[in-house]
Amino acid sequence: MARLVAAAAIAAVLCIFIVIFTSGAVNGKYIKYNTGAGIVEGKLNVHLVPHSHDDVGWLKTIDQYYVGSNNSIQGACVECVLDSVVESLRRDPNRKFVFAEQAFFQRWWAEQNLETQEEVKKLVDSGQLEFINGGWSMHDEATCHYIDMIDQTTLGHRMIKKQFNKVPRVGWQIDPFGHSAVQAYLFGAELGFDSLYFARIDYQDREKRKEDKSLEVVWRGSKTFGSSSEIFTSAFPVHYGPPTGFHFEVNDDSSPDSAPVQDNPHLFDYNVEQRVNDFVAAAVTQENVTRTNHIMWTMGDDFQYQYAETWFKQMDKLIHYVNKDGRVNALYSTPSIYADAKNAANESWPLKTDDYFPYADRENAYWTGFFTSRPALKRYVRMLSGYYMAARQLEFLVGRRSSGPHTFSLGDALGIVQHHDAVTGTAKQHTTNDYAKRLAIGASEAESVVNLALSCLVSSRSGNQCAASATQFSQCHLLNISYCPPSEEEIPEEKSLVVVTYNPLGWTRTDIIRIPVNDANLIVQDSKGVIVEAQYMELDNVTINLRNYYTKAYLGVSPKQVRRYWLLFQVSVPPLGWNTYFISKAERSRNGYLSVLKSPENETVDVGPGKLKMSFSLTSGQLKRMVNSKTGVDMPIQQSYLWYRSSGGDMDPQASGAYIFRPDGSIPVAVSRSVPLKVLHGPLVDEVHQQFNSWIYQVTRLYKDKEHAEVEFTIGPIPVEDGVGKEVITQMTANMATEKVFYTDSNGRDFLKRVRDYRADWSLSVNQPVAGNYYPLNLGIFTMDNKSEFSVLVDRATGGASIEDGELELMLHRRMIFDDSRGVGEALDETVCIEDTCQGLTIRGKYYISINQVGTGARWRRTFGQEIYSPLLLAFTHEKMEDWRASHATEGTVMDLDYSLPPNVALITLQELEDGSVLLRLAHLYEAGEDLEYSTMAKVELKKIFAKKTIKGVIETSLSTNQEKSKMRKMNWKVEGDGGEMPVVRGGPVDNSTLVVELGPMEIRTFILTF
Amino acid sequence: MARLVAAAAIAAVLCIFIVIFTSGAVNGKYIKYNTGAGIVEGKLNVHLVPHSHDDVGWLKTIDQYYVGSNNSIQGACVECVLDSVVESLRRDPNRKFVFAEQAFFQRWWAEQNLETQEEVKKLVDSGQLEFINGGWSMHDEATCHYIDMIDQTTLGHRMIKKQFNKVPRVGWQIDPFGHSAVQAYLFGAELGFDSLYFARIDYQDREKRKEDKSLEVVWRGSKTFGSSSEIFTSAFPVHYGPPTGFHFEVNDDSSPDSAPVQDNPHLFDYNVEQRVNDFVAAAVTQENVTRTNHIMWTMGDDFQYQYAETWFKQMDKLIHYVNKDGRVNALYSTPSIYADAKNAANESWPLKTDDYFPYADRENAYWTGFFTSRPALKRYVRMLSGYYMAARQLEFLVGRRSSGPHTFSLGDALGIVQHHDAVTGTAKQHTTNDYAKRLAIGASEAESVVNLALSCLVSSRSGNQCAASATQFSQCHLLNISYCPPSEEEIPEEKSLVVVTYNPLGWTRTDIIRIPVNDANLIVQDSKGVIVEAQYMELDNVTINLRNYYTKAYLGVSPKQVRRYWLLFQVSVPPLGWNTYFISKAERSRNGYLSVLKSPENETVDVGPGKLKMSFSLTSGQLKRMVNSKTGVDMPIQQSYLWYRSSGGDMDPQASGAYIFRPDGSIPVAVSRSVPLKVLHGPLVDEVHQQFNSWIYQVTRLYKDKEHAEVEFTIGPIPVEDGVGKEVITQMTANMATEKVFYTDSNGRDFLKRVRDYRADWSLSVNQPVAGNYYPLNLGIFTMDNKSEFSVLVDRATGGASIEDGELELMLHRRMIFDDSRGVGEALDETVCIEDTCQGLTIRGKYYISINQVGTGARWRRTFGQEIYSPLLLAFTHEKMEDWRASHATEGTVMDLDYSLPPNVALITLQELEDGSVLLRLAHLYEAGEDLEYSTMAKVELKKIFAKKTIKGVIETSLSTNQEKSKMRKMNWKVEGDGGEMPVVRGGPVDNSTLVVELGPMEIRTFILTF
Repeated sequence: MARLVAAAAIAAVLCIFIVIFTSGAVNGKYIKYNTGAGIVEGKLNVHLVPHSHDDVGWLKTIDQYYVGSNNSIQGACVECVLDSVVESLRRDPNRKFVFAEQAFFQRWWAEQNLETQEEVKKLVDSGQLEFINGGWSMHDEATCHYIDMIDQTTLGHRMIKKQFNKVPRVGWQIDPFGHSAVQAYLFGAELGFDSLYFARIDYQDREKRKEDKSLEVVWRGSKTFGSSSEIFTSAFPVHYGPPTGFHFEVNDDSSPDSAPVQDNPHLFDYNVEQRVNDFVAAAVTQENVTRTNHIMWTMGDDFQYQYAETWFKQMDKLIHYVNKDGRVNALYSTPSIYADAKNAANESWPLKTDDYFPYADRENAYWTGFFTSRPALKRYVRMLSGYYMAARQLEFLVGRRSSGPHTFSLGDALGIVQHHDAVTGTAKQHTTNDYAKRLAIGASEAESVVNLALSCLVSSRSGNQCAASATQFSQCHLLNISYCPPSEEEIPEEKSLVVVTYNPLGWTRTDIIRIPVNDANLIVQDSKGVIVEAQYMELDNVTINLRNYYTKAYLGVSPKQVRRYWLLFQVSVPPLGWNTYFISKAERSRNGYLSVLKSPENETVDVGPGKLKMSFSLTSGQLKRMVNSKTGVDMPIQQSYLWYRSSGGDMDPQASGAYIFRPDGSIPVAVSRSVPLKVLHGPLVDEVHQQFNSWIYQVTRLYKDKEHAEVEFTIGPIPVEDGVGKEVITQMTANMATEKVFYTDSNGRDFLKRVRDYRADWSLSVNQPVAGNYYPLNLGIFTMDNKSEFSVLVDRATGGASIEDGELELMLHRRMIFDDSRGVGEALDETVCIEDTCQGLTIRGKYYISINQVGTGARWRRTFGQEIYSPLLLAFTHEKMEDWRASHATEGTVMDLDYSLPPNVALITLQELEDGSVLLRLAHLYEAGEDLEYSTMAKVELKKIFAKKTIKGVIETSLSTNQEKSKMRKMNWKVEGDGGEMPVVRGGPVDNSTLVVELGPMEIRTFILTF
Repeated sequence: MARLVAAAAIAAVLCIFIVIFTSGAVNGKYIKYNTGAGIVEGKLNVHLVPHSHDDVGWLKTIDQYYVGSNNSIQGACVECVLDSVVESLRRDPNRKFVFAEQAFFQRWWAEQNLETQEEVKKLVDSGQLEFINGGWSMHDEATCHYIDMIDQTTLGHRMIKKQFNKVPRVGWQIDPFGHSAVQAYLFGAELGFDSLYFARIDYQDREKRKEDKSLEVVWRGSKTFGSSSEIFTSAFPVHYGPPTGFHFEVNDDSSPDSAPVQDNPHLFDYNVEQRVNDFVAAAVTQENVTRTNHIMWTMGDDFQYQYAETWFKQMDKLIHYVNKDGRVNALYSTPSIYADAKNAANESWPLKTDDYFPYADRENAYWTGFFTSRPALKRYVRMLSGYYMAARQLEFLVGRRSSGPHTFSLGDALGIVQHHDAVTGTAKQHTTNDYAKRLAIGASEAESVVNLALSCLVSSRSGNQCAASATQFSQCHLLNISYCPPSEEEIPEEKSLVVVTYNPLGWTRTDIIRIPVNDANLIVQDSKGVIVEAQYMELDNVTINLRNYYTKAYLGVSPKQVRRYWLLFQVSVPPLGWNTYFISKAERSRNGYLSVLKSPENETVDVGPGKLKMSFSLTSGQLKRMVNSKTGVDMPIQQSYLWYRSSGGDMDPQASGAYIFRPDGSIPVAVSRSVPLKVLHGPLVDEVHQQFNSWIYQVTRLYKDKEHAEVEFTIGPIPVEDGVGKEVITQMTANMATEKVFYTDSNGRDFLKRVRDYRADWSLSVNQPVAGNYYPLNLGIFTMDNKSEFSVLVDRATGGASIEDGELELMLHRRMIFDDSRGVGEALDETVCIEDTCQGLTIRGKYYISINQVGTGARWRRTFGQEIYSPLLLAFTHEKMEDWRASHATEGTVMDLDYSLPPNVALITLQELEDGSVLLRLAHLYEAGEDLEYSTMAKVELKKIFAKKTIKGVIETSLSTNQEKSKMRKMNWKVEGDGGEMPVVRGGPVDNSTLVVELGPMEIRTFILTF
């Protein structure tokens, strides 16, 4: 008989597998898994925390992530996650899941039917589904302003409260690229969180913390608040995914070692014992770097659980078989359950202060590039942040219209862009465009709110009552490039250009307005008809070209070639109030002062109409000195532009990119040694124009009545034709002995002490002497010696450093040709195009310099910092001045006329909520000890703020308004070697009759008012 | 105020999107989709058929596919599919899903709890979940034997019937690589299917059918049965996936143009109109190639629906919005609903006869390589197929043991390997190993069944009653390489080697047994003690080396170097019965005839102990002529080995590979011109040994009393060190004027006429004159002229062709170094290894040659073909002959001693079912007109088959036993130009008293008997 060779192949396996068929049928049977394990004392408890990390935009847009389109970029569908998680949770009441990003959840929630909503409510009630973090997005911690962080957290927390009556207990910042002090104390402790979790800390820090089991700490992020704002903080030992081999995403080819648990002995690949051993081994590895017998496994990853059952099915089996094995105890858990267990363990924890910046994930890989990446987006976000605050004030002042327009869509967009791949500049270009589009749409609706509100506010002389008004205001968001149609228009015969200015600050404000006009023969009158001093300034060519190119590129506007001027005039606007100015054609001769070119008389040119003077060298064109004649501070100082050559494309695989700043190690290239200089003088401002090279232009302005210099830079297109990415900095070098020390803010709020080439938490091995010393700025940076302070404030999130003593530098713009291999997959190479011709994006922005006697700089930084954040809001229309004045309220405030907020307090939120109640947030601006006079208890009289309304109720709440302040509980933690602390100053309860709010240094208090 | 350039980027989009926010909130709302559409008359109805094509092993093993492991090879998890489909179907009663592969479904079903099983039953009852095809796997149609196809279909259909009381109505062969006539008429019409669907037909055929709207036809696959076995058949216009752009798998990056339907107008990428237009356009495209206003969209693909909701959610939306649009009508459907609609349309359909082989998916890409790929696996499958049949007979004969061992696991394994990527040889190597392992396990259990049954059968002289027996039989599955421990052992003193032979055929059978022994001094006695003639033959070196290498490689056996012989003797065994032979040491001298080397006396060597002689040339060593002195047929004939050079690695991207046979265009390389020749003579057999080259060895055997030649080839390791893949053929060239015509079988049953370079259905454009003329063989190939027939039968699935008139060729082995780009991703390069040293796999097999007068060849092909399929089964033990003869039944049959089946009928299934009833399947072996005597009505007397039992009941059923034959309904179809047909001969109903079964030509009748 014919048989063949292959039979031999078979016979071999035959002996081995004979055991299988004798044990029964080939198919398996139903197994009920025991998933009900709780914590077991005396065993190592492995808390399995099912989660999905769903970026609110990154490689794909938020909508693409939501619906799961554009999967060729990334397989990711958040709708699938939520659909399937709910289903999986229903299948077994022991299963749990935590979800963070409300921008996604709310989108999903709105699309569910009532039955599903009810089911989800039950899941939330029972604790199976727990919201953690709970903001609109998982905000970045380096490039976000604290006011934006508050707003976006409030947005999410209010939804969770309203829909589920739940208060998130957990900070879940697993992915942001470093962690801020403000996150720890304000968005942790002060928000009412018990614990905070994240994955990304410096690789050297992590190694050290694994050695001494200090990945988990008690973090006191605030010098001012100390232990009163501490939070239990857990940094993960690896990343926010599960241990290797326990990754169970559907249709995913990325984890070949994650074999599903195969418990049917009749099928091949049966592996229960093997997988249990893997589990125990991974648990023990983690136990070895963790205090107490509780460890957490983050069972999820980016956009995982698209079919949740694949994860839960495996976790069910693991819990069942691991607990049957008995060496360790596995349980479904959440970070809040984990925190409770940690707390109950009565362990002492290491103390952590300051923050976790900068972040490097390995040698030469400092994530300090994103502090500056996409500076245009960063500025757009900051600008709209201030605008959003003002728009909500105005919306409140005239009453929120249920029919809209609303400020919600701007809040939504701002919430989204706080995401740690949005404002950070680390999203793909198409996603970044999507963010910008969302912001623009939100801004546009908010602009309607503002126009309607202003129109209403000014329509009634009494200011009490808002009549329907025909006034059509328009606003100019592109003043930076001198584009403002209403001010540029020919002013109609007999009419004036009416400029209404709104001041969102709690203080009266004097400022100089600058608008483009086509006529240098205009007069400016104030609300009483008094002519005010004006100054004209011819538009420089750089601005004209910028205007022409960018309006053509983005608006399709072909510019008319007319002679244009900047018209400058000084305004004064009451707190939370407005004032009106009228610009009309002069009947005879020009009313203002056309700035004149100053012919320097000697080698040094002194500039400045007021107390602060700057001296420039005529020959080199360089700044030489700043002198404040009022304070007597006299500081030799140079300022220049340089660029770092980006690493990339060579043998070392780490390129500089959207995330990572990696200069190639050579000294930065100075842009120029000698700079042409043009000085313009006038009564309101002196300007020094410097063309540093063909793509860097700078205007330095010294204003009447201001004791700082304003520096406007225009940078771009950065040339990369030479194959070298460039990271452009401005460097200011003062003659100061700063001893490596400088200070940078945390999210625009606390200033932290930085020491060059040093970390307090471990012995730093320096491999990147520049990139490793960069820190994120949102407010600014300063340094000092024993005589003076030298401060620089910024207009957006920016990277800054002090690489030499006495030196401060800002990274202002970056353009690269390589990707830095952290996932975004694109070089950071922003361009702007007219038709098919593209060039690198040009950036225009400002920074501000102040010199002060030592110990006095905070006042400028705090007060003027608030003004940068909240500029005057301008609205334009055309009308006969007399008619306007007769029928409109030209000046007004909602506050008591004599009242303004104390200079150390800012009103950071004033917003009418959907239910008609009003959200008021007040922030003390000073840290303890920062200023002799202002770092003290401040008092705010609510009755005087709302002078024209009657306050019926005041409830103080948590920062995000989701619980009453008085009912917030605080978990106590033991800290290793805990010593005495300075007493903390906090305001007391608000007396219901006086309604005076006290605020201690750095205190932020949140109230829900009813009128 | 400072604003920045990016704002301009935003303003541009602002105008465009202002419309969005005015229409309401940002989030969407719940939408109830109307998915309840049925068929709408007068509209184009788009039948959406949700399906998942789940290969029963391919790139991964069946277990890996089931649980979703090894996803780095392919993201695929059938468990996920079934879990999530059930959930999705529950969500909306309008949703439907069809599932085919029972090997997967049954695995899943067994693991479900009762609650889920109940839910699934409801879904099946309501028609939401429909089983189609319903076999264990989606069997191949080229390389499967029809008996295997019946068995594997029966396995699945019985499960479906038992669990759900359902009968599948649809043939769903969407992926197999060409389609057989037997599939159409036997596994379509005769199974009770109304319709048959598939994707793969020749690209030229498809183009032509699209032009004349003949993708859908009425197929009459049987010449014998004509319209009585017709089936409505639909070939898809593209493939079995959805139209481009409608592919909705979770976490899948392969279909970037398949945007989800985005119907929330507040989100970007809203695309309802676009997607509806896409849908309508795709529907109209298909309408243009389809008759009637019904088209089917196959909404699925390989291993899709891992999270079913992603598909259903999109289909819900598409049905809702497309029907709202109204241009076409979209509905959830199944192929059976579609067939009903097609049938109701009262359209006339084109007639299709013959089959759809060979298949090419584009120019130069003929899928004719897989007819031969992995010849060892193909032989192992065929060998176990026959063994499975015999084992079930024996299991029945002694009564099925509920406690096992069973034949089920072999049936399960054989069901799996009928899959169109298993026996085809187109799975990855590791998967192929898994198939082999499953077969070996199944075979091992079946071997236990056989041993126990034989032991029982022979234990009682009456044969009626089975006593517990101590006889331990063993069997030899590696006789082909002369490995058989029980026959090789030293026969113990006074004992004999007892050889029990079982004959699974319905006819008495005479055959020559060949077993390896170590002693040439043995005598062979029959059951009565009479010495029978024996012949010894020394083992050739090729066989010895093969035995040594392969037992070492696979069994770890190091051979003893002893002199070995083949012992040959003739046996005769009753139908469905056994006989016993005793081999003992001869006391004096050898009992047998040691074959002698013949010294040729002249240039021509004549060989053959019987009527058939073959003449070889002494100088060239080549075959020259075959003469049958009984029939007078005298045929000049050459036989040689050649190989085609595989295409691959050059400029043309189409390489030869596991699927595709693509020779490089040069003429095939002849292995040798002159062959050393060794001729051995003996009373039972003459052998001609020819070493064609170092890796091709051939033995031609002519047996006493047989009128065919048996050719045993040993091929390998095929050398590929020269960088050229080789496809080895044997070529036989007779001097016949065959006029391009030859015949090949369909799945071992009907013979179809083939015409070289010609297709009946379209005007063939020949681009592959060799590969495009290859056809699959399972039984054999023949050709004829007006005088003679020249037939070749094969021992496994094999590719064959007639490339020149008078020539027949078989492709016997293939080894390649490139992949052919059809997904398997491996070159077909089988190796065998000892430790780390590997060499190409050597193949040993047989084919058989017969020459006949014209019109008389069928008898040999049919009768001997059945003997090839069902060889005698041998079992060995050692016992004293006298004792054995005294206590055992040495010869017996369950049939009436005088009865045997008519020579034109085979018993193809005899199996005791789980419920104790017995499945009997009888097959008429001749086509209408094939043989004057045998192509007639045959009669089988059931009472005489089961002479020792009393038949209580006989129910005739469909082929797969899932419905009573009398209740099967047949759908009627109008056929274009339908003319008269020859009358069809079918057996009448079985009379309950006589129990005589009539079978017309080609008829297969299936009965459930109770005793």
